Amino acid sequence: MELTNQLTQQLAVRYPIIQAPMLGITTPEMVAAVSNAGGLGSLPIGGLAPEKARQLIRKTKSLTGKPFAVNLFAHTLPTEVDWDSVEKMQHFLEELCAKYGVTFSRFSEEDFTFYTYQDQLEVLQEEEVGIVSFTFGLLDSLSIALLHKRDVKLIGTATCVEEAILLEESGVDMISAQGIEAGGHRGSFTSNHPLPMIGSMTLIPQVVQSVKVPVVAAGGISDGMGIKAAFSLGAQGVQVGSLFLRSHESAANEAYKESILHSKDTDTALTRSFSGRWARGVVNQFMKSVEASGLSIPPYPVQNSLTAAIRASAKKQGKKDFLSLWGGQAASKAPAKSSREIFDELLSSFRILLNG
Amino acid sequence: MELTNQLTQQLAVRYPIIQAPMLGITTPEMVAAVSNAGGLGSLPIGGLAPEKARQLIRKTKSLTGKPFAVNLFAHTLPTEVDWDSVEKMQHFLEELCAKYGVTFSRFSEEDFTFYTYQDQLEVLQEEEVGIVSFTFGLLDSLSIALLHKRDVKLIGTATCVEEAILLEESGVDMISAQGIEAGGHRGSFTSNHPLPMIGSMTLIPQVVQSVKVPVVAAGGISDGMGIKAAFSLGAQGVQVGSLFLRSHESAANEAYKESILHSKDTDTALTRSFSGRWARGVVNQFMKSVEASGLSIPPYPVQNSLTAAIRASAKKQGKKDFLSLWGGQAASKAPAKSSREIFDELLSSFRILLNG
Repeated sequence: MELTNQLTQQLAVRYPIIQAPMLGITTPEMVAAVSNAGGLGSLPIGGLAPEKARQLIRKTKSLTGKPFAVNLFAHTLPTEVDWDSVEKMQHFLEELCAKYGVTFSRFSEEDFTFYTYQDQLEVLQEEEVGIVSFTFGLLDSLSIALLHKRDVKLIGTATCVEEAILLEESGVDMISAQGIEAGGHRGSFTSNHPLPMIGSMTLIPQVVQSVKVPVVAAGGISDGMGIKAAFSLGAQGVQVGSLFLRSHESAANEAYKESILHSKDTDTALTRSFSGRWARGVVNQFMKSVEASGLSIPPYPVQNSLTAAIRASAKKQGKKDFLSLWGGQAASKAPAKSSREIFDELLSSFRILLNG
Repeated sequence: MELTNQLTQQLAVRYPIIQAPMLGITTPEMVAAVSNAGGLGSLPIGGLAPEKARQLIRKTKSLTGKPFAVNLFAHTLPTEVDWDSVEKMQHFLEELCAKYGVTFSRFSEEDFTFYTYQDQLEVLQEEEVGIVSFTFGLLDSLSIALLHKRDVKLIGTATCVEEAILLEESGVDMISAQGIEAGGHRGSFTSNHPLPMIGSMTLIPQVVQSVKVPVVAAGGISDGMGIKAAFSLGAQGVQVGSLFLRSHESAANEAYKESILHSKDTDTALTRSFSGRWARGVVNQFMKSVEASGLSIPPYPVQNSLTAAIRASAKKQGKKDFLSLWGGQAASKAPAKSSREIFDELLSSFRILLNG
């Protein structure tokens, strides 16, 4: 096993370890710390207004001269929204918040503003972003052509073999294979079967065997043993998210960090309650209440907008039961240290095993 | 990485590779082939009448002088059965079978006969079984004392850290950690949280860190890369089931074997429709129909008895849509070869990587 491979060469990084983009958690400081340590930091800008994205990219560039990835949401907007369902959900959320003392703000049809990755492309070009990762779908062929013309490296996200093949056909340079262990949003985007729920032990080798581009293992990796396992299965790199949740550079508040620290392996579940897309997080009152309501959950990004103000209030009020407590199946391993220390310790725990 | 370790010493086998017990699939011939090759074959007798179990054990002993495990079901019987639900389910199944031309036999309350592992203990002792593995729960302390007095090695099944700790406290000698990738029945037995659905990448290291006894990685392992990954995560052995589904010694019929061969990573799902317990298999009409019925599924082993005749008819009629097509998330890797060849190739693919 080598620390230098096709993946590190393509990304021009020293180590094949990627910090996973975690919207709402990952800060420019976290990204820069990992990139400065020789890994690849990933700055999430999915759904953000282009000018906000520019600000974050510039901030990150001010903190590191090393390569980092910018992460996009490649979903398509729902073609039709059932406003009656939205209204019912909103009414339910209002009563739920009242019951638990969480500040609530109503949304009306006009308030919904969604930015797609296409809206952000100009900023990416102007800011000369060199690595773009994305999730929730495929980039359209014009965007891929545009980015490739500028020699931007593209990393797509797959949760099953079919998605990996579609991504390779679309022209990505590498594929992040997201096992069911992963915290946060599932990258799944094909719909001719139920949500793929494939464990890394079977997902990684099957994706590796199905595509020619380098594969990054994502989900549940928290130490050198995990990196070695992922490499054994054919991955050329790993993506690590939950391990940085409690870092000094994480934007998670104390209530979130506490929940992660005390989470057991059985404490997380997949839910659509927060955003309308499936995501893994520590089970809390909000998840349970929305799921028990029997109401139809509007698709992403509508539900996400409906709950945005609730999550923001809960964050301020320190109410973990109304926060989206995204985390993977080994999230409790996350240490309360600087991102640099976390990265260095992860790398050194892998180095020790390198010749084992 | 060594091929000899605490686990191989305790089991007195040459290689730390266990063939998973697959009731209805695993034959004495399969068990003996794996044990004769230096691994540990496992003979499933869960729920069988003691004399049937004795017959199978004797048959296996006639085919190998090497150690093999006998696998038990350690569940407790439901304290109360809702016969009204049973009747509704039975009525539904009768109509479903009529619709698809599958022979149906009615069960009445008196027909239900359940054998527990306690019913089988005498046979195990008389036949001097040296290794007992089990799933679905804990063995009671009297049984454990009885078996340990005769120096029988005990292997329990855990699907989360809590179960592993309970098993160790109960006195087992090793623990099989069953990741969500595994085919067939989930060994889960704790009920103070939803069904654990933990991927091997996070389950194995967390179980290894929580117990002192050797841990066997089970679920989705189909080649040397998988074994190496499992060992990297701290396992001392692996349990491999799906890889033997299409072997010459498998009792699966052609329709089943065909379904496994063509199964994609996204084709399996967890279902309670066949047995009343959660199990992973290739999705088919029976699963979809029972789940879409909205009926309450009676607990194991009641539902199992209700569907036994249907599964037997479907097997004879070659109707894969009414068979339980148990298989893991990499089941399509199963080759149509002898169990001995499959074992030898698995071992040699691992040997090649041993110093890699």
